[in-house]
Amino acid sequence: MSDSIQMIPRPKSVITFEGKLKLKPDTAITCAGEGAFAVGELLAEYLRPASGFEFPVSKTKAPGTIHLEAAGVAKTDDAGFADEYYTLCVSASGVHLQAKNATGLARGIQCLRQLFPTAIMAPSLQKNDWILPFVEIEDVPRFRWRGQHLDVGRHFFSVEEVCKFIELLALHRLNIFHFHLTEDQGWRIEIKKYPKLTEIGSKRDCTLIGHDNTRPRRYDHTPYGGYYTQEDIKTIVAFASRRHITIVPEIDMPGHMAAAITAYPELGNFDFKTRVRCHWGISQNVLNVEDSTVNFMKDVLTEVMALFPGRFIHVGGDEALKHEWSESERAQNKMYELGLKSEEELQSWFIRQMDAHIGDAGRRLIGWDEILEGGLAEGAAVMSWQGEEGGTQAAALGHDVVMAPIEILYFNHYQAEPKEAEPLASRGMTPVDAVYAYEPIPEEIAEENHHHVMGAQGELWSEYIPVFSHVEYMGFPRICALSEVLWLEKDQKDYPDFLKRLKVHRERLDYLNVNAHKRP
Amino acid sequence: MSDSIQMIPRPKSVITFEGKLKLKPDTAITCAGEGAFAVGELLAEYLRPASGFEFPVSKTKAPGTIHLEAAGVAKTDDAGFADEYYTLCVSASGVHLQAKNATGLARGIQCLRQLFPTAIMAPSLQKNDWILPFVEIEDVPRFRWRGQHLDVGRHFFSVEEVCKFIELLALHRLNIFHFHLTEDQGWRIEIKKYPKLTEIGSKRDCTLIGHDNTRPRRYDHTPYGGYYTQEDIKTIVAFASRRHITIVPEIDMPGHMAAAITAYPELGNFDFKTRVRCHWGISQNVLNVEDSTVNFMKDVLTEVMALFPGRFIHVGGDEALKHEWSESERAQNKMYELGLKSEEELQSWFIRQMDAHIGDAGRRLIGWDEILEGGLAEGAAVMSWQGEEGGTQAAALGHDVVMAPIEILYFNHYQAEPKEAEPLASRGMTPVDAVYAYEPIPEEIAEENHHHVMGAQGELWSEYIPVFSHVEYMGFPRICALSEVLWLEKDQKDYPDFLKRLKVHRERLDYLNVNAHKRP
Repeated sequence: MSDSIQMIPRPKSVITFEGKLKLKPDTAITCAGEGAFAVGELLAEYLRPASGFEFPVSKTKAPGTIHLEAAGVAKTDDAGFADEYYTLCVSASGVHLQAKNATGLARGIQCLRQLFPTAIMAPSLQKNDWILPFVEIEDVPRFRWRGQHLDVGRHFFSVEEVCKFIELLALHRLNIFHFHLTEDQGWRIEIKKYPKLTEIGSKRDCTLIGHDNTRPRRYDHTPYGGYYTQEDIKTIVAFASRRHITIVPEIDMPGHMAAAITAYPELGNFDFKTRVRCHWGISQNVLNVEDSTVNFMKDVLTEVMALFPGRFIHVGGDEALKHEWSESERAQNKMYELGLKSEEELQSWFIRQMDAHIGDAGRRLIGWDEILEGGLAEGAAVMSWQGEEGGTQAAALGHDVVMAPIEILYFNHYQAEPKEAEPLASRGMTPVDAVYAYEPIPEEIAEENHHHVMGAQGELWSEYIPVFSHVEYMGFPRICALSEVLWLEKDQKDYPDFLKRLKVHRERLDYLNVNAHKRP
Repeated sequence: MSDSIQMIPRPKSVITFEGKLKLKPDTAITCAGEGAFAVGELLAEYLRPASGFEFPVSKTKAPGTIHLEAAGVAKTDDAGFADEYYTLCVSASGVHLQAKNATGLARGIQCLRQLFPTAIMAPSLQKNDWILPFVEIEDVPRFRWRGQHLDVGRHFFSVEEVCKFIELLALHRLNIFHFHLTEDQGWRIEIKKYPKLTEIGSKRDCTLIGHDNTRPRRYDHTPYGGYYTQEDIKTIVAFASRRHITIVPEIDMPGHMAAAITAYPELGNFDFKTRVRCHWGISQNVLNVEDSTVNFMKDVLTEVMALFPGRFIHVGGDEALKHEWSESERAQNKMYELGLKSEEELQSWFIRQMDAHIGDAGRRLIGWDEILEGGLAEGAAVMSWQGEEGGTQAAALGHDVVMAPIEILYFNHYQAEPKEAEPLASRGMTPVDAVYAYEPIPEEIAEENHHHVMGAQGELWSEYIPVFSHVEYMGFPRICALSEVLWLEKDQKDYPDFLKRLKVHRERLDYLNVNAHKRP
């Protein structure tokens, strides 16, 4: 195989040929089939800055030097996923990228970018020959859900930064961006019906200095805030859609709601002047279970669903401490009315209300594994963060699951020893090799339920990630490893080979101005 | 031995003689020495109702038929305990009760009451011969602290009921009544400087129905309240003092303060409209650590110390959840000012403030074993409720301890199987034989520290004890067993013998109208 083929993630099938294709300055991109033109334009945008070529893009069945062809419309499966299969052929006559649909093409162009000399990633003109090796590649990902999460609640990242992040997910052929939009420490999405959510809930008075476990807690006394207008969200959604990346928006409830309760105290359980939380850890403030609160949250989700076209809507459900409900006479009365025997059942009831609302809109609910407690809502999918037990249990019950176990896929953990030499991080230690070694289908899941494991995703909780360059530092190269875990077949994985390729891949990340960690 | 001697708890030494003393209607009680006359009057009160005799009491060195003689003044040890040794001689010439001081006499008359036919306990005239066996008894208790606790916070008991309880402790020759006066569910002692503590804090809107672990919680919606005026307290203290029983008052802080915080919200950590708690369990509301709050609590203790003459003042310290302090910026700032590294150290600091205040008044602080966390205050004694570990640890550090382990000495637990056939109780199961088998000095305490184990006590937490007759039901016969654990030497204990004597003792309890449990 030629060098550059060896430097892309291993495809399902590769046939190499003697010879190379050198692109000429007048190379055109031609596109055929539904959605292909938009992918062609995206490809042109990727290739123009470093090459200085114009790469005119046109719709035509007559192939130019680079031809993209979508065989049909993106038919999605019952979970909303398109078939991502593609073939990529480079020969003397040019580049031919073929897929069943535009989504496959969107994955294929990311492969194509990586077949070029790494300098193609540069944002400005490079003196280079733009040579591609002759090859026939056939590829398709192993998992449907290849995700990466970003918490913009604890720290806020701009529209441009979020788009850069999504761009990097696209490069790594992930297909899901889990957008964690609301937190105790800040509500980050404009909701037109409830403007105080951002007017009040997006700002906190100060922020903890150092680690949340350190005592005494000290604060910086600098107000902090930020949120996305609905226009901003549309920009981000459009940016992701163009890359065939689905955004899964998360409105975390009924816990992690201190900011919302501060904005609308009537959502809380007690007459308690709370504030947008200035340190980390789990807040005990959870939503009350009044009908008015259920309706409030449905209204929020209605606006969220209007903004985010993806199938899955994430309602959190994690770390909702039951203390307030067990103390609240109103909550206990509600349990009595509903014939519920525990606060866990009450949470289950609450989540079911959201499930029905989301289902009525033709969407599907997903939540963290705590939504299993007290009984899982009918159509709910489970994101298993507390190890794999929740996912295993949900799969056995016939629910779709996404693996996101804290021990392996929390990229806010440390990634290299000694911790002291690293910037402050959450806790735990997840080096790249551990991520690479991860197998998303645990042995405990019976073979007939394997299909319920939609995939897995990495998490970036931003308590100790104050700026975007640090998102990059924590995310990469662990996201590089994750992308192979999710795309490659189990037996295709090869850590030494990954490390060899990573060396070259670092050049790409450097050109893209990504502040990746230097190890391994 | 004659029957009635066999039917009293085993004294240290007994010599029996052929013959009996039959009291005549004109029997007089003569008293010599400091405090003897008051004990003589008490004895007369005990004997009059059933016998119908007048029992004139006089001070004289010339012995009458019943003669009480205190050899000297009650000298107390450094913990405030008097020597309780006594000798009791019954012969043809009469009854001669001799002790080193009046406290010993007070114990001796309880022994004497039990030498009589059980009908002597009756509240009204009995047709009986009042016969005592000839005997020479020498007795002294094994432990200095022979206590029984009563929680009047969760449920309130009247002055008369509390006095009846103290009377029963006296009969069983206990010497400490631990008076648990304040709770989340009600503040029960008038504090002149802070009238709202009782005006507001002694009342709750409603009370939980059933067990605190049952869900959903249901409430009776009947206001509940009650408190002791300072005059009431004086009545109770006088009643106990006359029986040489020391009351250890408890003002539980910094947790179990929901009633106080409801009355004076400035004592709390947050701007949180709390209420006097209507169900059980542990409240998260704890005192804040402002100087004003420390001074408030010192003021409370000043009034408490003026009312209760005993050496020990109990400040609780149990179950003070650290959640609010860890959430409160003010509390964290206080920790920073004081150079403290944990909320446990902050509690320790708080308790030390109380320790200094109590010490300045010539008293000694005692608290539940949580006061060990974060460092024990200098002169503090420890009441070990979470098993014996706290007591063991404190004794090793040279602190005096009282054993009150939840597994054995919580008399609010069930006492007989099946639980379903019993009235609702806290949880756990502590039958009489387990109480009787209890050894207050755990093996883990080195011999040189045995003297730090002042003794032990039973607890009666009143969540599930709504009325006084149920205090009796839960207390007896477990308190009968406890009294032998604490008075008898280890090798004097004999459970079959106890059971035999208990049969007779039940007659006494019946005469005293005590609603004791029927088993064993």
